[in-house]
Amino acid sequence: MSYSYKKPEGLHRFGLENYRDTYGFSVAEMDKAVADLPRTPDQIDLTHGDTRAFLPPASALENFTRAVTDNSEAYSVYRGSATVRNLLAPRVSGLLGIDVDPSKNLIITPGTQGALFGALSAFVGPGTIVAFPALEYFMNEKIVSYLGGESIRVPAITRSDGYIEITEADLELAHKSGATVFVFSNPNNPTGGIYSQVMIEKMAKWAKKYEISVIVDQLYCRLIYDGRTYTHFASLAGMNEQSITLMGPSKTESMSGYRVGIAVGPSTMINSMETILSMTALRTAGYSQHALTGWLDEEPGWLEERTVLHQEIRDYLITGLGSIAGIHVRMPGGSSYIFPSLIDSKSINGKDYANDFLFAQDLKSAGVLISPGYQSGLSGKGHFRINFSQHFDLIKKAVDTIDSLIQK
Amino acid sequence: MSYSYKKPEGLHRFGLENYRDTYGFSVAEMDKAVADLPRTPDQIDLTHGDTRAFLPPASALENFTRAVTDNSEAYSVYRGSATVRNLLAPRVSGLLGIDVDPSKNLIITPGTQGALFGALSAFVGPGTIVAFPALEYFMNEKIVSYLGGESIRVPAITRSDGYIEITEADLELAHKSGATVFVFSNPNNPTGGIYSQVMIEKMAKWAKKYEISVIVDQLYCRLIYDGRTYTHFASLAGMNEQSITLMGPSKTESMSGYRVGIAVGPSTMINSMETILSMTALRTAGYSQHALTGWLDEEPGWLEERTVLHQEIRDYLITGLGSIAGIHVRMPGGSSYIFPSLIDSKSINGKDYANDFLFAQDLKSAGVLISPGYQSGLSGKGHFRINFSQHFDLIKKAVDTIDSLIQK
Repeated sequence: MSYSYKKPEGLHRFGLENYRDTYGFSVAEMDKAVADLPRTPDQIDLTHGDTRAFLPPASALENFTRAVTDNSEAYSVYRGSATVRNLLAPRVSGLLGIDVDPSKNLIITPGTQGALFGALSAFVGPGTIVAFPALEYFMNEKIVSYLGGESIRVPAITRSDGYIEITEADLELAHKSGATVFVFSNPNNPTGGIYSQVMIEKMAKWAKKYEISVIVDQLYCRLIYDGRTYTHFASLAGMNEQSITLMGPSKTESMSGYRVGIAVGPSTMINSMETILSMTALRTAGYSQHALTGWLDEEPGWLEERTVLHQEIRDYLITGLGSIAGIHVRMPGGSSYIFPSLIDSKSINGKDYANDFLFAQDLKSAGVLISPGYQSGLSGKGHFRINFSQHFDLIKKAVDTIDSLIQK
Repeated sequence: MSYSYKKPEGLHRFGLENYRDTYGFSVAEMDKAVADLPRTPDQIDLTHGDTRAFLPPASALENFTRAVTDNSEAYSVYRGSATVRNLLAPRVSGLLGIDVDPSKNLIITPGTQGALFGALSAFVGPGTIVAFPALEYFMNEKIVSYLGGESIRVPAITRSDGYIEITEADLELAHKSGATVFVFSNPNNPTGGIYSQVMIEKMAKWAKKYEISVIVDQLYCRLIYDGRTYTHFASLAGMNEQSITLMGPSKTESMSGYRVGIAVGPSTMINSMETILSMTALRTAGYSQHALTGWLDEEPGWLEERTVLHQEIRDYLITGLGSIAGIHVRMPGGSSYIFPSLIDSKSINGKDYANDFLFAQDLKSAGVLISPGYQSGLSGKGHFRINFSQHFDLIKKAVDTIDSLIQK
């Protein structure tokens, strides 16, 4: 199925095809330009977290191994082991502040990516218009396009205090532009911004008024800094009925190698997601599902320690990157992402680093891999994303490398 | 995305909607009728293999654990770890008799199901007509429908000697009916029939003549009985360029709980499948990929022993089920499936077991779970499928239960 993209009237649409106008290159060409440079073992890879810097809980492998030895759930029902769902449901319920029936409202998915694909497949068909904030997870638009839907981007500002603002006028415009589905990550990928309670309430009010179906990617909802209040979208009145919440242990808990995630939502949507999952993979790997046994029930202090350690690295980056002339940094309120911009970039090395893939190229050659801003949407132009779930010494070395490149 | 099904002119089309005419019920209603009966731990489940009767190789867990401990490939490239692909490529090449470039022709998928979804997605879009044998894996038609394509069934006879026959006239008719994609499992799910070299050659000639893209599900290609010759479709002249071969360790090797499989094919198709996989799950679970390290390279005699043990159970079933009045059994040439038919079925228990879901219901109540024939296509009417990769004593008990039910 080839990607299709139509440009309907209404809110300005950033689509897969618009990159050439802005960057002079297609996404595929920019991807290739960076990927074609040599990849060597000594490069510091900041495009994803390092699961050797922050280890998965030891219980994950223990529970996996027990599942292999016991060997009674190699073939679980498609939506996942009832044993595991029964364990997780009360924990998820407590975290999100909503009722979660393990037999009806919860599905175990191949990573949070599997949950996202399933949720979008449940809501999106040919002609469906899906809105999401201007900067978002790079896969959203591809999946919507694959499903025959159309993507529109809603302007969103990540403030210097780590909170994201979307105006009511822009939400109204999204509805007027035909959007019936809204997808957002909270904390945001790539900026690490989070949505305040007031902002979440505004979005819920808007969703209720226009019967917008909402998908909330809460992959990072446990990694929140500075004691900020975090508001779960599904917990607002009525939202449990028209939203799907995606979560997983791949980030904060470093369990990406197990490829497990969950989706929580109304039973009709979970049923649809199960049908999709049965086609794409039958089920999430039976043994891996059991690696979730200890999730959301870690020993006391585990999450707090992990949060403090990440916050220390964040603070180092705020200061370290912020002191480099030519780079502007915003405070992430959560997640392990930081999304600096390259200001006054035309003067750097005689190259226009506002074409952020050129920066990604030069930095890769200098030994550091980052995610260039274009991957998160056209509003990412002139930015780059770092996943700072890393060994502290490598983060320091990377900052030095970036400093050297920019000052060269 | 809702299922759609249109009936174009040409070859008779067995579609998702035709069940009501034949059975008086929809697939969903029949599924529910069986599923709603109580499920208890003492029931004998013959709907899939028992991974506790035939264990996964011990090396699978060892290699998985090593990957967790080493922890360098939690995030592999989307098509799968280069380390694992480099190991598998020469083994797959030797098995299939074709060149396999590990960087271009091979992708690691979430089970063989993930490979099937990816392969169909690469070939099928709205309006694509996909042909497959009258009895086939029950997911084919659902996926084709999800992708907006249309399914047609080609008459296929599984002979008493374990080989499958499709006439050249029916292949011609499939082409005339607009089919541009052909999917078949070899050995066949559900009958266990295999395709002779002569038959494979006919199909390849037809595929070449009309430029038909072919997907071959070879999940069971290592479990072949009575020393039969097995011909890999991709090994025939030119077929490597227009076919995708699906394989995996979930069946013969009992590794279903790891959810890993592979697809082998032309680089353009593997690239498309990687794009699909990146959307549905990003990648196959990084650690699980390494469980494949010992696959296709088991210790000498391992496969032969496993084949002999399965063949003994098959032979027991041929005799045991075959001696029950009212049941007719065909010899499976490979796989761990047997697909008996219920003949003279109107007289049994006053019920018409040609409506095979009624038989599935009664047998479930009597303590044995089987897959009713309707799941494999309308040609499965009056049949049932047993997966006989089980403890021998449970197979014996199941045969006795079936005998009692039919003789009652």
